[in-house]
Amino acid sequence: MRPADQLRDVQIETGYLQSNPASVLYRCGQTIVLCTASIEAKVPPWLEGKGKGWVTAEYNMLPGSTSPRKRRDRDGKVDGRTTEIQRLIGRSLRSVVDLKALGENMITVDCDVLQADGGTRTASITGGFIALAKAIEIAVPGYRFSDGAAGGPLTDSVAAISVGLIDGEVKLDLDYPLDVAADVDMNVVMTGKGRFVEIQGTGEEATFDDNELSELLRLAKQGIVDLTAQQHAALTD
Amino acid sequence: MRPADQLRDVQIETGYLQSNPASVLYRCGQTIVLCTASIEAKVPPWLEGKGKGWVTAEYNMLPGSTSPRKRRDRDGKVDGRTTEIQRLIGRSLRSVVDLKALGENMITVDCDVLQADGGTRTASITGGFIALAKAIEIAVPGYRFSDGAAGGPLTDSVAAISVGLIDGEVKLDLDYPLDVAADVDMNVVMTGKGRFVEIQGTGEEATFDDNELSELLRLAKQGIVDLTAQQHAALTD
Amino acid sequence: MRPADQLRDVQIETGYLQSNPASVLYRCGQTIVLCTASIEAKVPPWLEGKGKGWVTAEYNMLPGSTSPRKRRDRDGKVDGRTTEIQRLIGRSLRSVVDLKALGENMITVDCDVLQADGGTRTASITGGFIALAKAIEIAVPGYRFSDGAAGGPLTDSVAAISVGLIDGEVKLDLDYPLDVAADVDMNVVMTGKGRFVEIQGTGEEATFDDNELSELLRLAKQGIVDLTAQQHAALTD
Amino acid sequence: MRPADQLRDVQIETGYLQSNPASVLYRCGQTIVLCTASIEAKVPPWLEGKGKGWVTAEYNMLPGSTSPRKRRDRDGKVDGRTTEIQRLIGRSLRSVVDLKALGENMITVDCDVLQADGGTRTASITGGFIALAKAIEIAVPGYRFSDGAAGGPLTDSVAAISVGLIDGEVKLDLDYPLDVAADVDMNVVMTGKGRFVEIQGTGEEATFDDNELSELLRLAKQGIVDLTAQQHAALTD
Amino acid sequence: MRPADQLRDVQIETGYLQSNPASVLYRCGQTIVLCTASIEAKVPPWLEGKGKGWVTAEYNMLPGSTSPRKRRDRDGKVDGRTTEIQRLIGRSLRSVVDLKALGENMITVDCDVLQADGGTRTASITGGFIALAKAIEIAVPGYRFSDGAAGGPLTDSVAAISVGLIDGEVKLDLDYPLDVAADVDMNVVMTGKGRFVEIQGTGEEATFDDNELSELLRLAKQGIVDLTAQQHAALTD
Amino acid sequence: MRPADQLRDVQIETGYLQSNPASVLYRCGQTIVLCTASIEAKVPPWLEGKGKGWVTAEYNMLPGSTSPRKRRDRDGKVDGRTTEIQRLIGRSLRSVVDLKALGENMITVDCDVLQADGGTRTASITGGFIALAKAIEIAVPGYRFSDGAAGGPLTDSVAAISVGLIDGEVKLDLDYPLDVAADVDMNVVMTGKGRFVEIQGTGEEATFDDNELSELLRLAKQGIVDLTAQQHAALTD
Repeated sequence: MRPADQLRDVQIETGYLQSNPASVLYRCGQTIVLCTASIEAKVPPWLEGKGKGWVTAEYNMLPGSTSPRKRRDRDGKVDGRTTEIQRLIGRSLRSVVDLKALGENMITVDCDVLQADGGTRTASITGGFIALAKAIEIAVPGYRFSDGAAGGPLTDSVAAISVGLIDGEVKLDLDYPLDVAADVDMNVVMTGKGRFVEIQGTGEEATFDDNELSELLRLAKQGIVDLTAQQHAALTD
Repeated sequence: MRPADQLRDVQIETGYLQSNPASVLYRCGQTIVLCTASIEAKVPPWLEGKGKGWVTAEYNMLPGSTSPRKRRDRDGKVDGRTTEIQRLIGRSLRSVVDLKALGENMITVDCDVLQADGGTRTASITGGFIALAKAIEIAVPGYRFSDGAAGGPLTDSVAAISVGLIDGEVKLDLDYPLDVAADVDMNVVMTGKGRFVEIQGTGEEATFDDNELSELLRLAKQGIVDLTAQQHAALTD
Repeated sequence: MRPADQLRDVQIETGYLQSNPASVLYRCGQTIVLCTASIEAKVPPWLEGKGKGWVTAEYNMLPGSTSPRKRRDRDGKVDGRTTEIQRLIGRSLRSVVDLKALGENMITVDCDVLQADGGTRTASITGGFIALAKAIEIAVPGYRFSDGAAGGPLTDSVAAISVGLIDGEVKLDLDYPLDVAADVDMNVVMTGKGRFVEIQGTGEEATFDDNELSELLRLAKQGIVDLTAQQHAALTD
Repeated sequence: MRPADQLRDVQIETGYLQSNPASVLYRCGQTIVLCTASIEAKVPPWLEGKGKGWVTAEYNMLPGSTSPRKRRDRDGKVDGRTTEIQRLIGRSLRSVVDLKALGENMITVDCDVLQADGGTRTASITGGFIALAKAIEIAVPGYRFSDGAAGGPLTDSVAAISVGLIDGEVKLDLDYPLDVAADVDMNVVMTGKGRFVEIQGTGEEATFDDNELSELLRLAKQGIVDLTAQQHAALTD
Repeated sequence: MRPADQLRDVQIETGYLQSNPASVLYRCGQTIVLCTASIEAKVPPWLEGKGKGWVTAEYNMLPGSTSPRKRRDRDGKVDGRTTEIQRLIGRSLRSVVDLKALGENMITVDCDVLQADGGTRTASITGGFIALAKAIEIAVPGYRFSDGAAGGPLTDSVAAISVGLIDGEVKLDLDYPLDVAADVDMNVVMTGKGRFVEIQGTGEEATFDDNELSELLRLAKQGIVDLTAQQHAALTD
Repeated sequence: MRPADQLRDVQIETGYLQSNPASVLYRCGQTIVLCTASIEAKVPPWLEGKGKGWVTAEYNMLPGSTSPRKRRDRDGKVDGRTTEIQRLIGRSLRSVVDLKALGENMITVDCDVLQADGGTRTASITGGFIALAKAIEIAVPGYRFSDGAAGGPLTDSVAAISVGLIDGEVKLDLDYPLDVAADVDMNVVMTGKGRFVEIQGTGEEATFDDNELSELLRLAKQGIVDLTAQQHAALTD
């Protein structure tokens, strides 16, 4: 059994699709997310003429990614959970992009979950960042992402992990069985330099106190340091 | 100018609609939310036959609540922000309800924003709790909410407030101009007994560190204590 | 019990929302409608370049306005009754507006029913006119609505009332119990100068003859005279 | 040129579709409406178990019925005009049906406009009644519609006509050019016995007085008498 | 009983609607389709500025065309069968149009089924071609369709027929009872000059071999020759 | 350059998702489709109580599967091409299933295109059959698919391939550049035993004659024989 403070095994396959080098197959235990970043030379209407770019994300679970099969979002009503998740991914990725340096371009990062075993939103952020960085490297000739690079569109890296409180004990990186068992579930998004981007802690039919909050955040930070190292390695290959 | 650690003026009018005593007109500065709680003797399909009730919330901004006028959500696509907010309100209210004690009943808390000047989601939680408590008092003969009441459907009270980081300074209870200026925006939901229900801290195009997080949470807790007292007063009248 | 030819008590609160002076809280017995008028410097596509403005209305009942709770129109299908009512409100308001004098501006009058006890469509017209007049007074510097004013965008006032036939007797201003009991239901819209704008008489599973029609119209005219006086008073304050 | 008080030429072809004898091709001048009535042995959910039937109508203009071509209502948003019209047709038809005598059956009368030249809603009511009567005659063995028949599902016939006010003159049965020219447009629905079912008088950007109202109603009644005779003839053949 | 290799009786009424000469009432046995062609001086966005026109089709079954009544496609979800059929009609008609010679104009051919007894899609193609040809004759002064005409927008005529395999025997022109009985159903679209435009052979829960395929195609060709003669006659009148 | 009568390289990875053994990653050149089959112990409403099962398919292209990025079908309007394709896949798979032997179970085969380079619909059929066979093997203890197996739910295998006519020459297995260049495009679905299930030949703005048809079918049959062998090998491993 995996220790409470240990991440699941992560595998990152960049350039997974021959047609788009900014594609990443991200595996975290049995969770598999295909992240692809696409650039278009336009921005949303409300941003036109402001000399800035935009980064957005879409998240989707394939019907076969869960058992029983998940119905497709085809009736015009994207469910609330999906909406929340893709907004979170978009905000997280934008937190490390200098939108002015991007120019009037829009990058859409698609995160399609092929297999879901918990942590799909944090996997989408962590894998999505790699696809985003690849897309920017391709779009900006000569630019290579590296921690601390000055003047480029990327100001930092970003990664995310979940932590939870189960029977009074804190646990890192919840897979599906742990997620179901958790009284409190927290997703933490941080940059490679160790600053918070987003904290979302939720006690569905439960609550938590200051000490538990401190423990959850400590564990999350430790996981982010590990994921950041793996992201950098994948982008350096 | 309002000090950084001071709430806006709150006014709570219970029984605002003659047709439904579980209706509350909640004002927080210039933000006005009409909260009404409606009980139905049924539960959602996935909860049938489990001997438990359910509490859900719907949130909506009236077109005239903002300037310029806000378009109605009538094309079948509730926007992502609305979806997130009403899910948050529902989770927050459920955190203080013993769903088993509720029996197979469903309470819908509608939060309609008549005038929006920032903090509409936290006002909806704080005002919505009062409507919810009133609805339960009406539904359960002889039951009166009071902090610590044993065995009733309500296990505690719940309230919410926003805090933010503006030019390096923390501020309590963001009105619209402060919300726009904030680099980091955090909504904190807590029970009357001082436990966290939900923390949602977001740095859109910004980040924050541990010290800033501590300051934000300290200020939020102080605001919640104040709001809790006002909720209890309104329910005691 | 209210006499057959007497209106319910009307209360008109102008400037109800601080953010928009063209907002009116209109109460007619237990029916409460919040009417707000918003101006935009544009017209619908089919009216562009014609040097005319437009006035339109949207009508909505809040979920808590009725018991049992009314479902929100969020699935993209505004129900037929709502559509009919908001078209009627828009036509009625336009009947007293000189659209050319309005210039290429569009005014949307939102009528949100906070509490429904019959007569919400006629209350929306009567209250909506006040919000409309306020919006025009704000938009046209120096202009003040007054009966007979020459050359301004408003050519007259407009108000509406319902009348009905119950067990062979005519009744003015139907509240919900009367509306349910009525064999014939008629909504009459008239200007302050006493001309008809709209007559909608409906005998759902019933019919009516010439004499009954005459009586219904006589009573409606009397009610409109009374409402017109109250509108003018509210606009003169 | 047609005199102001004369109907357009009416042609009624019953049993137009071999597959459904309750089908009527109704022509009124150049307006052509195909009316079909279909019976199902069920009622809407809200009427179940009450021992009553229901009659409803659907109205639609074919794309080729107007020039320029009319877009189909396929995006899930039936336009407001269509909704109003089909509600009017349904109410009008129900006014002459004894829903209890119908039993728990539902009749849907479809009115599809093949060619539109004004008066499509009144043609739909007048033609729709014939289809409805045919459907009932087929469903109730031995029953034949005749004015004054006792105890059957039909208590009377119903027909409709438009009248209008053009440059101060009243006109019967508006075709499209007259409809466009009319300051006031009124649709009147009456039974064969001469009672009003529905009066809808509208002055879009115009108003009317008592004398004009009397004249409009007088002309409408005269037209209804003529149409009623033609309906009876078609049903007697 | 109709021989296996004989078409149903075809009746073609051109100029069925006075308001649009490019309207055709096409009857094939008890199947009745109203085909109307409408020209607009514009093209779809993706074709703008290319100096070419476009031809598209819409297909619809009226509710009364079948027994039991067919529900209208009004909920925003055109069913898959309808979509397939109208795409097939559009492709078939375009196969005989020189889109460049059409200029930047768009022709929409509406095929509304008044009565359905099998073969509605092939009737729509065969009748739709006649409406299309009429519309082009009206739009291009002096142009008359004739087989082999050089330089005009029409390069050929097009017609369609169904064939099927029933208990091992091939049959031409399936009406509804034959269609239901068929193991294999094939729709064949051919030009007047005898070239294939489209072959759609489907064995729902059945399969077919080379010999059966040959027989089906032979019968279809024979039917097309007959239909082509009737189209030319209708266009020559 | 690939010879005109040679298939692209096919790779079949069964059990691609650990959570569902009936999952197949099917590659055909650069086209990649993830096919998963899910069984539910229910049937569509119209099939209830008939003692038969059902097989259906859903097809979807991921946004990153094409360049430029393909918009998601999330507005409630699945495009016509998608609808046609998934209906074709469903019919094709059902042609080799004994629905009675399946009992009242429903199998949904999801075909999600990860990378699109032409031939996605035929790849979905060929790969989808393997997922379907695996699902049945799992559901029916002891059952193994093998060509000619008696009494099981599978009566045969099924595969599909495209052929086309390019500048007068026939070509097997069109990748995207060939598909764009093709004057005539034909998809052929056949069983392992060599019988036709479906032939869809389309000349968009082109036509074809008997000889060309024969050549296209000859080439398709040859390709199907090859694919069938690879399917059987994958299912035998």
